[in-house]
Amino acid sequence: MAAYREATPDQAELLDALVAAGHLIPSGVPGVYGRGSDFEKVRLGLDGHVTRVATAAGETPETLRFPPVLPRRQLEDLGYLESFPHLAGTVFAFEGTEAQARAQAERAGGHEDWTEHQCMTDLVLMPAVCYPVYPAVARRGTLPAGGVTIDPGGSYAFRHEPSGDPARLQMFHMRELVRIAEPETVQAWRDGWRDRALELLRGLGLDADFDVASDPFFGRSGRMMAASQREQALKFEILVQIAGPEPTAVASFNYHQDHFSGLYGITTADGQPAHTACLGFGHERIVIALLKTHGLDVSTWPPEVCDALWGVAA
Amino acid sequence: MAAYREATPDQAELLDALVAAGHLIPSGVPGVYGRGSDFEKVRLGLDGHVTRVATAAGETPETLRFPPVLPRRQLEDLGYLESFPHLAGTVFAFEGTEAQARAQAERAGGHEDWTEHQCMTDLVLMPAVCYPVYPAVARRGTLPAGGVTIDPGGSYAFRHEPSGDPARLQMFHMRELVRIAEPETVQAWRDGWRDRALELLRGLGLDADFDVASDPFFGRSGRMMAASQREQALKFEILVQIAGPEPTAVASFNYHQDHFSGLYGITTADGQPAHTACLGFGHERIVIALLKTHGLDVSTWPPEVCDALWGVAA
Repeated sequence: MAAYREATPDQAELLDALVAAGHLIPSGVPGVYGRGSDFEKVRLGLDGHVTRVATAAGETPETLRFPPVLPRRQLEDLGYLESFPHLAGTVFAFEGTEAQARAQAERAGGHEDWTEHQCMTDLVLMPAVCYPVYPAVARRGTLPAGGVTIDPGGSYAFRHEPSGDPARLQMFHMRELVRIAEPETVQAWRDGWRDRALELLRGLGLDADFDVASDPFFGRSGRMMAASQREQALKFEILVQIAGPEPTAVASFNYHQDHFSGLYGITTADGQPAHTACLGFGHERIVIALLKTHGLDVSTWPPEVCDALWGVAA
Repeated sequence: MAAYREATPDQAELLDALVAAGHLIPSGVPGVYGRGSDFEKVRLGLDGHVTRVATAAGETPETLRFPPVLPRRQLEDLGYLESFPHLAGTVFAFEGTEAQARAQAERAGGHEDWTEHQCMTDLVLMPAVCYPVYPAVARRGTLPAGGVTIDPGGSYAFRHEPSGDPARLQMFHMRELVRIAEPETVQAWRDGWRDRALELLRGLGLDADFDVASDPFFGRSGRMMAASQREQALKFEILVQIAGPEPTAVASFNYHQDHFSGLYGITTADGQPAHTACLGFGHERIVIALLKTHGLDVSTWPPEVCDALWGVAA
């Protein structure tokens, strides 16, 4: 089994309160929950708020949407398994005969191991909402002048990190925006959104700060990759204290330089390698931070928060 | 590999046209596509239309939402692997050491087999949007008088059936509604929705008909299960001719009798075993049927269709 992270006492208390209030519905597996109607209302309100803030900032991103599975070959080419082997989820399926199907069903019905009947398919679970954007943009050929901004929406991502912390889910919504353009354009966009997102989250009443950050690279060699990422300030996060010993990252801003454009061959209008950056708002983490900050009864939330989320009172 | 269903010439032509118009974005894996902005606008309009039709019919379902993974133990208990072993997707992940991670990344980078490094997790992909509803309702104890109606939304389901038919996806949105109540209440609800859904789809200009149907049970013994299901008229489908030799099911209506309530122990207010039924609208199939019927340029669609989907012109 993957290293299960036990909840701290305050994380366990928060999870119990969220379940008791009907915001989260336990599935029996840590980090996998259903969502009640108020939770979903806040989540969709937040997503709409991000869209409105983007529009007000003059952004006109193109909407594209992708399902929560990615071709396995793309994961292999991305080098994801070098950096995050512990977080990847792969899709297996049955390919056998009727007799094998009966044997599999019998073992599964008795809750015995039925691994041997499952084969790796050509799909994996989506590790990050922006991953399918880059090959989709690359298919179109050279970028238009000024590059593109893509809105892949608030879509599901999977990370195999079972935890008792209600703010650390295995399957969660990440609302991303992706910028693909000349290097200086992309950097300015990333820095602009870092400031805009901080204002957005503080405007919802969250005690948010930002910091230089690094990805959770695997193992000892991963520590060097993390140090290099920090040194180059390629990743920023916005942090809010939710529960546990440390603040939780609720949004992140990643500058990939030419990593993705090099892999997929994306070039700018004047024939240079494009750079890319993305930002992501962690839907469920922000909703939980709002519930912790403003109370579990959404109908009592401050009018300015309701107005930002829904344009009206809860 | 799973039996790949080749596209018929008209299915291949439709897929090419949908891709050329930007409605579907190929991932490289059959049955897995991104969606363009107009496709998504129609899909969300359809989802809203179903909600409005439900409201107009006096339905007041409770909103619950679930991520597209299910506890493996629930799949095992459901007997899904007896009926549909060929459609299930299971989630595997890495559990090894740093040396094993390096070996895995090397094999994956060379597109060699890295199966041996992956272990079965306690999650599977969601086979049907209604499956997590039943244990969630069971947790609450005895049903209120009159039972409950749950709206699990237009959420993702996975079926491992790679195909060249653009109307047969591996990961797709199924908009469900679930009724849990006394047997006669549930049957009347299912029959009412069968007629209402036919009217809804015909109102969008689709040449839709309904028929008694059966699930795609696996193997020879599955043919007997299918015959029994038909004989008891437990499943209806609404069919539309999209492409290929036979019409495509775009909605289904399933009466489970006491199957789920027995598994999870759901009882009515007067202490009897509840019955359950669900209906599902296949989002992507209906959007593709609309694009085929009204044309690939959504801005030219008939005003009455636009009005139903968005309340205004496209």
